[in-house]
Amino acid sequence: MTVPTLKEKPAEAEAVSHELLLRAGMMRSFAAGIYTLLPLGDRALANIESIVREEMNRAGALEVVLPTLHPSDPWMCSGRWQAYGPEMMRLTDRAGREFCLGPTAEELMTITVAKTAPSYRELPVNLYQIQTKFRDEMRPRFGLIRGREFRMMDAYSFHADEDDLEVTYQAMREAYLTIASRCSLSTMVVEASTGLIGGKASHEFMVVSEIGEDLLVYCPGCDYGANFELERHRPGHAFGGESAPIEEVHTPDMMSIEDVASFMGTTPRGVLKCVMYVVGKELVAVFVAGYREVIEAKLAAALGTEDFHVMRDDERELFPTVVPGFTGPVGLAGVRALFDQEVKGARGLITGANKVDYHYRGAEEGRDFVAEPVADVAGPVEGDLCPVCDGELKIARGIEIGHIFKLGLKYSEPLEANFTDRDGVPKPMVMGTYGIGTSRMLQTVVEQHRDDGGIRWPAAVAPMPFEIIVIATEGGGQPEAAARIVSELEAQGFETLLDDRDASPGIKFNDADLVGLPVQVIIGKKLPASGNVELKMRYTGERRDLPLGEAAAGAARALAEAP
Amino acid sequence: MTVPTLKEKPAEAEAVSHELLLRAGMMRSFAAGIYTLLPLGDRALANIESIVREEMNRAGALEVVLPTLHPSDPWMCSGRWQAYGPEMMRLTDRAGREFCLGPTAEELMTITVAKTAPSYRELPVNLYQIQTKFRDEMRPRFGLIRGREFRMMDAYSFHADEDDLEVTYQAMREAYLTIASRCSLSTMVVEASTGLIGGKASHEFMVVSEIGEDLLVYCPGCDYGANFELERHRPGHAFGGESAPIEEVHTPDMMSIEDVASFMGTTPRGVLKCVMYVVGKELVAVFVAGYREVIEAKLAAALGTEDFHVMRDDERELFPTVVPGFTGPVGLAGVRALFDQEVKGARGLITGANKVDYHYRGAEEGRDFVAEPVADVAGPVEGDLCPVCDGELKIARGIEIGHIFKLGLKYSEPLEANFTDRDGVPKPMVMGTYGIGTSRMLQTVVEQHRDDGGIRWPAAVAPMPFEIIVIATEGGGQPEAAARIVSELEAQGFETLLDDRDASPGIKFNDADLVGLPVQVIIGKKLPASGNVELKMRYTGERRDLPLGEAAAGAARALAEAP
Repeated sequence: MTVPTLKEKPAEAEAVSHELLLRAGMMRSFAAGIYTLLPLGDRALANIESIVREEMNRAGALEVVLPTLHPSDPWMCSGRWQAYGPEMMRLTDRAGREFCLGPTAEELMTITVAKTAPSYRELPVNLYQIQTKFRDEMRPRFGLIRGREFRMMDAYSFHADEDDLEVTYQAMREAYLTIASRCSLSTMVVEASTGLIGGKASHEFMVVSEIGEDLLVYCPGCDYGANFELERHRPGHAFGGESAPIEEVHTPDMMSIEDVASFMGTTPRGVLKCVMYVVGKELVAVFVAGYREVIEAKLAAALGTEDFHVMRDDERELFPTVVPGFTGPVGLAGVRALFDQEVKGARGLITGANKVDYHYRGAEEGRDFVAEPVADVAGPVEGDLCPVCDGELKIARGIEIGHIFKLGLKYSEPLEANFTDRDGVPKPMVMGTYGIGTSRMLQTVVEQHRDDGGIRWPAAVAPMPFEIIVIATEGGGQPEAAARIVSELEAQGFETLLDDRDASPGIKFNDADLVGLPVQVIIGKKLPASGNVELKMRYTGERRDLPLGEAAAGAARALAEAP
Repeated sequence: MTVPTLKEKPAEAEAVSHELLLRAGMMRSFAAGIYTLLPLGDRALANIESIVREEMNRAGALEVVLPTLHPSDPWMCSGRWQAYGPEMMRLTDRAGREFCLGPTAEELMTITVAKTAPSYRELPVNLYQIQTKFRDEMRPRFGLIRGREFRMMDAYSFHADEDDLEVTYQAMREAYLTIASRCSLSTMVVEASTGLIGGKASHEFMVVSEIGEDLLVYCPGCDYGANFELERHRPGHAFGGESAPIEEVHTPDMMSIEDVASFMGTTPRGVLKCVMYVVGKELVAVFVAGYREVIEAKLAAALGTEDFHVMRDDERELFPTVVPGFTGPVGLAGVRALFDQEVKGARGLITGANKVDYHYRGAEEGRDFVAEPVADVAGPVEGDLCPVCDGELKIARGIEIGHIFKLGLKYSEPLEANFTDRDGVPKPMVMGTYGIGTSRMLQTVVEQHRDDGGIRWPAAVAPMPFEIIVIATEGGGQPEAAARIVSELEAQGFETLLDDRDASPGIKFNDADLVGLPVQVIIGKKLPASGNVELKMRYTGERRDLPLGEAAAGAARALAEAP
């Protein structure tokens, strides 16, 4: 096999791992977010999926395979045919029936199990598939991290009650952590919102990475972690200032929080920020501390709707009573207000004065205005406090490799997925659902295990364990030595990648580092000089000379030591 | 695991194997030709796909995985975007770009290899994938035999020349026969037409079966076999009669070959059949022996077009010069004629007289009409002769499980898939393509290995090797014995299906035969009586009593003996 490596960084590459997978000949793209895995990429994915399969089987889940083409009816029944919007890829068959390409399979799996009409004795049931999934992302990004066609393991469990769901939920959590650990991915479990999947609670499995598309907070002191969408920080910073009389200040041309704070001799920590949202047809003034952002997922939870957006300039005339840029809670009229929890009890605040070019200084909650209603709508900053212990929260970007959900009855009720209970009465099954992105994990492994030279595959995921590099010299016997080592390693059940191309040593060494198999066996001029070959451990860079006769055994030992 | 068996034959079942897969809880349908494989069905498919993978790897092919979503451009380039018609499932993404769900992948694989710009030293390359495929069949039938979403292994080989293609083509032929044999499918290789895939030659791998959708002929005396579409029989029967003067006979109201033959005191072997085809806008009278059928695939080859159909009643007025039902070659005017090879030199024929209610008797080729042009357009009948040896051909229906093609330059020329030859000149790669339907094989195995009681899985494909049936008696110790056997078999690496349901022995025995695992271990009242359990070999029905302590070892031995 000749690996089709690329010398140049492909224009399409948006992340280092994406670039490496393309340059190392692991994959190629056919369209945005749609990839072919070449032989080495396919093997790495197969290794990950084998690990997933082993751990799911060990946890008592049974493998099935649902179709990719989902009829529209069950999705209509659950209400998600509409809810999924343009992310769902849809098509019509020759008879005019509508199908989607499954982005997930709660509906089909629920129907599958419901058809067996189980009794309580047959529960729990936990079924999974490792299947191609489809999501027509607005912005496919970072190669396999956010693709439009991707591989995912999705499991669905069915229970007689919540307690039984809890047992499987915890087992899946452990299985996912084991899977991530076997793939050498350091993973954090965080509380997450349930989004389009729905249900009562969910947890995401996050790998901290600068290319992560999710923001998360975690506590180094305990196991608390959550997605920004629903984290529960306790403010860890002073907000506002000393109690003082309220006074109006002329603040001409100061539109930003920073400008106003600086003019008043303070920082955004002294300023009350107002963001205007159009919610349905109504205007809502959302107040948060000047050093925080409004988190729209939290706002949606507080408002009970996702039908809102930040007021646009062209909408100002619809709401003539407010003064954008200078809106404050003192004397605010004709507009609904919503306050972040941190505003309660704050004093000495700089706020808009509801008058062009004027702010208040010294505004005090409870005296000058009342922060009602109040909700958790602001995001955390470093230094906020853990809601569980006294630790200081950390903020990071994360790649979501897995997500588990307690669904409750969300699907079993509309799809009439019942079991027969001890009392002979049909009841809806309590459900859980569990997804882990295997193709996304493949690239995440590369993102986490690389250096300037290329990929450094962890042994469990590596497409193959060994690369044999032949630097032939006239009469030096290197090709024969390579054949011997290949056959000795094959006899031990190991696959090898052989580079015996007619190319310079430099090209071969660079390609071997780029491709990143765990152990390189270099057969070059040392062989005729001393009878030795050289082992190079890709992860550590460590090199060892060995006599030819001990090379295969030495390579196998080096592999056993490799990360 | 409780297997969701069904007592009744499902209404949708069209073939026994289809019924058994549904009743034995191996699969369920969601829409015509679209199936879910439940845990046992999934395992059987996984076994088949493992065998395919092993044999493809052994033959030197490398696994990759192409996307399911194929952009339209490469298909436009090859001309197949139009040619595939409504069988191709198509969709448009949110940006308005067109995609199809790959029914096969010549275009994408050709582009994938072309991008590596290989040199002659890197050829041949043989890449395969085991991937879900889609074909929007007009009539999905027989479960997995003709589905709309199905699993297929498709391989594509790339060569510097035809000789090198021939080497891989033969290796693939051997690999396919090995795969079929390991799956206990008795398979025949037949010459086939290349259809929408195209190319120079192809062979199909056929399993003889009454539910087969293909007609094939084969010679028991040599290895000749071919699809009806392009078989080359030598007529093995007398056609026509003794030479005699031609005479006109009044044959009122006799429209069928049989009626006319009977009236004339002969059989269809004495009659020249005429079938009227509208080819484009022209009428063509096709003449074949009265006991044969016109094979439209052969007719297409003879005419050089597929744009034809049998003249419909409503088209008669477009062609007023012909007399449908009474058309004959003698004195035929104003219409093109085409003769099957067998008509050349025939004498004493009954033919239409081109006059309503009249036929000729004694028509003689060469004297009364000339059979020009002549072509092989008729189908074979039993008793025809082998074109290779003197054997008599047999006719059978077959299920096509695989198909291999010599493509030549059909894709590499339009898609500019070149390699660099020894002389440094870029040349188009010579290609082969090879497909084997893994989900279709799954059902074919069931169709070929069953009895009145259910499935009789061959051991290599069986979802699991053992079913343990527990018939508990009060204080009889059967559950404990079952647990012991399960754990002893698991320690040997075997999976077991345990039936310890609270159900009657009859239901359990029937279900075990239906599900059809190779070896049943029955733990019932013999255990307290004699300390014995019973083994039942599903394939042969043979039963053996064994002491509990020897049951696991005995079951493993029985498995080793199972077909």
